[in-house]
Amino acid sequence: MSDSRLNDLLDFLRFPSISTQSEHTVDLRNCAEWLRQKIESLGMAAEVRETGGHPAVIGRTAHDPAKRTLLIYGHYDVQPPEPLELWETPPFEPSIRNERIYARGSTDNKGQIMAHILGVGEAIASGKPLPVNVIFLIEGEEEIGSDHLAPFLERYKEDLACDVIVISDNGMAAHGYPTLTYALRGISALEFKASGPALDLHSGVFGGAVMNPATAVARLIASLHDEDGRVAIPGFYDAVADLLPWERDAAAALPIGDEIIRELTGVNELFGEKGYNSIERIGGRPTAEVNGIGGGYQGEGTKTVLPREAFAKLTFRLVPNQQPEEILRLAEAHLVSHCPPGIKLEITKGHSGEPYFADPTSPDGLAVQRALERVFGHKPALMREGGSIPIVVAFRNILGPAALLPGLGSPDCQAHSPNENFPIENFLKGIKLSQAILEELGTIPLR
Amino acid sequence: MSDSRLNDLLDFLRFPSISTQSEHTVDLRNCAEWLRQKIESLGMAAEVRETGGHPAVIGRTAHDPAKRTLLIYGHYDVQPPEPLELWETPPFEPSIRNERIYARGSTDNKGQIMAHILGVGEAIASGKPLPVNVIFLIEGEEEIGSDHLAPFLERYKEDLACDVIVISDNGMAAHGYPTLTYALRGISALEFKASGPALDLHSGVFGGAVMNPATAVARLIASLHDEDGRVAIPGFYDAVADLLPWERDAAAALPIGDEIIRELTGVNELFGEKGYNSIERIGGRPTAEVNGIGGGYQGEGTKTVLPREAFAKLTFRLVPNQQPEEILRLAEAHLVSHCPPGIKLEITKGHSGEPYFADPTSPDGLAVQRALERVFGHKPALMREGGSIPIVVAFRNILGPAALLPGLGSPDCQAHSPNENFPIENFLKGIKLSQAILEELGTIPLR
Repeated sequence: MSDSRLNDLLDFLRFPSISTQSEHTVDLRNCAEWLRQKIESLGMAAEVRETGGHPAVIGRTAHDPAKRTLLIYGHYDVQPPEPLELWETPPFEPSIRNERIYARGSTDNKGQIMAHILGVGEAIASGKPLPVNVIFLIEGEEEIGSDHLAPFLERYKEDLACDVIVISDNGMAAHGYPTLTYALRGISALEFKASGPALDLHSGVFGGAVMNPATAVARLIASLHDEDGRVAIPGFYDAVADLLPWERDAAAALPIGDEIIRELTGVNELFGEKGYNSIERIGGRPTAEVNGIGGGYQGEGTKTVLPREAFAKLTFRLVPNQQPEEILRLAEAHLVSHCPPGIKLEITKGHSGEPYFADPTSPDGLAVQRALERVFGHKPALMREGGSIPIVVAFRNILGPAALLPGLGSPDCQAHSPNENFPIENFLKGIKLSQAILEELGTIPLR
Repeated sequence: MSDSRLNDLLDFLRFPSISTQSEHTVDLRNCAEWLRQKIESLGMAAEVRETGGHPAVIGRTAHDPAKRTLLIYGHYDVQPPEPLELWETPPFEPSIRNERIYARGSTDNKGQIMAHILGVGEAIASGKPLPVNVIFLIEGEEEIGSDHLAPFLERYKEDLACDVIVISDNGMAAHGYPTLTYALRGISALEFKASGPALDLHSGVFGGAVMNPATAVARLIASLHDEDGRVAIPGFYDAVADLLPWERDAAAALPIGDEIIRELTGVNELFGEKGYNSIERIGGRPTAEVNGIGGGYQGEGTKTVLPREAFAKLTFRLVPNQQPEEILRLAEAHLVSHCPPGIKLEITKGHSGEPYFADPTSPDGLAVQRALERVFGHKPALMREGGSIPIVVAFRNILGPAALLPGLGSPDCQAHSPNENFPIENFLKGIKLSQAILEELGTIPLR
């Protein structure tokens, strides 16, 4: 392989660009400036642009108004590396072992975005006219919530105008298995507190005469599902778009079966909504999940207290076309109507994010599928992911185009964990993929 | 009033006989020795006897084999006084305000047991032969669980042989309202942990495919009761002795109605087993109560975790003739049979204590009722208490006689809390009550 390409990535990985730790603010700025120079050196215009937080790097190829414009998004900031003692080699001294690059950020997201940068660089270097215009938008706040991204998109909407968006900040269904993620679940968060007595009561002296708030919380949580694992909140499924036949075929074809999910989670038996397999339940069906419950005595042994209050923290994962605010409204109404006597219910609504769907059978989707097949040698897996990536929704809502998500991470990449790594093969195929994407997207006429 | 009687109590209250704090070990011993001398000075034989922990004080009147023997139990140890800053006057410098004695232990139990000691002392001083033989057993470990009491009773069974037992270590139904407590609930404790995934999972990445352990705990708790507040564990009520008609009349006659319970607990609405009022639910009906629940994220805001485990701590309050071990067996079987798929259930059985019932319409019960009526001027309330006093069961099981419980504490005595107090009136009436009890019990022939 070309040493210079690998060296570019290793240099990028040496910046401790930890966005959540203020002592690294200067490292983020240095990293952004290095990235600007790297992009410029490949024949693009590049600048470091202020966001109000850590800056963003913008790169762009020469603009041809007769061509479509592709925006490629990535981020140069990384998760904190702690706990350091679990790293086999230091997180910001990249090390190559077993044909993988070990470093914080190697997969998430420096390796993946660098593959795109170098891919576009190689396309420029080839001397042929680029099939599409390319804009890079590489931010420094993804790991801390991308708070400044949406305002930034709003502000530079004209400047960032594009016809299609590609993001590689996610994973492949299996090692070496080309994958196009076409849907993400949305989220609604809600916390409720059930209060009963004015103070913790002695469960002997008063038990039996008042509703126990912990029992009330339990009854409310139990009311959220029926025996078949379906969410029992009235109206919850009204807006849910059923999985289409091709989606169920695609889910069945994924190299991730129930047995793998069982192994990954370590449960002795899987459980979920009747009528769906695990991968469909995770990607294609909404959930009501308890993230935390608490109330009363938490220590060792027994304390005969009847607690004055108890709480639960819930998140709902949503699928198209559920609306987060509407789901919170339905959930609140359900909880209020099921609240046991003698209990005061306090409901706090939390953050929310819309579900996402980018049709992989659209012309752009098919183009990215073709690019994946050309580079990896077989048809890509089409996957819905269970998690949420709020920025994807921001791109769609502000800039317009749906983002296509051909991830390059391996399932065992350890993103966010010690010993994060990126297979050299994924890096090199990613460089090829980026060029193939330019070519395939270039076959689609400008509307 | 006689100053010397009050001074005796004030001297008793000055000992910081805090059994749970090892730095006070010598104070307990000094207190026991002072008590021995006090009892001796009133004309009884008295000794400090080792228990293996803090010593017990035994006092006894001259033994007449032709008479019945009454054992009066009490304790000279006290709860810790903390938080000290909430006391209006120092806990071990007794202070008289509003015709009450303020000091740690004033109600629990120094004031009540001193009333009995002085009552018996006055009976002796009267020069008339005592109607019954009296044995005092005053221990120093009640506030730390009376661990050495049962072995002590076993060891000195012959020495402590008696026909009837009286204990004043509890409260009155209302201020100045003579009260005979005739039943206490028993208890069974149980904790269960529901485990699912091998580790905390991302609720987006895996939510929907596995049973959430917090949901499982909630469903298990919800399964414990039906909609009418009855415990839904099969067999739970099989051994329950129904409240007798006279008991329901007595409960209805108590100066504690639902409105007072509502005020004491501070709930906006009472709730409990259908068909009973609050005081019956507390004293006469068994419960399944959650003392603590926990699992997953406990901090502020949202964390999208699907917790690997969750737990609940339960206690069951039991009434005659429920057997604690049998209830735990039934509860365990119920939980196991309701355990959702994919969940491993770990059940830990905790401590237990039998329910207690001493028929207030027995000859001894009627005698104590007559004594209460003589001293307080009206018929006593007959009350079941919701709490458990394990030593009462130990007395019955080891020595034989049922203990009668004419409490002298006021509802606002603040036992175990700052500013514990004992009305002087209760102290003086207690002295009279003790003499009246001797006389009334003396009318019952020796069998």
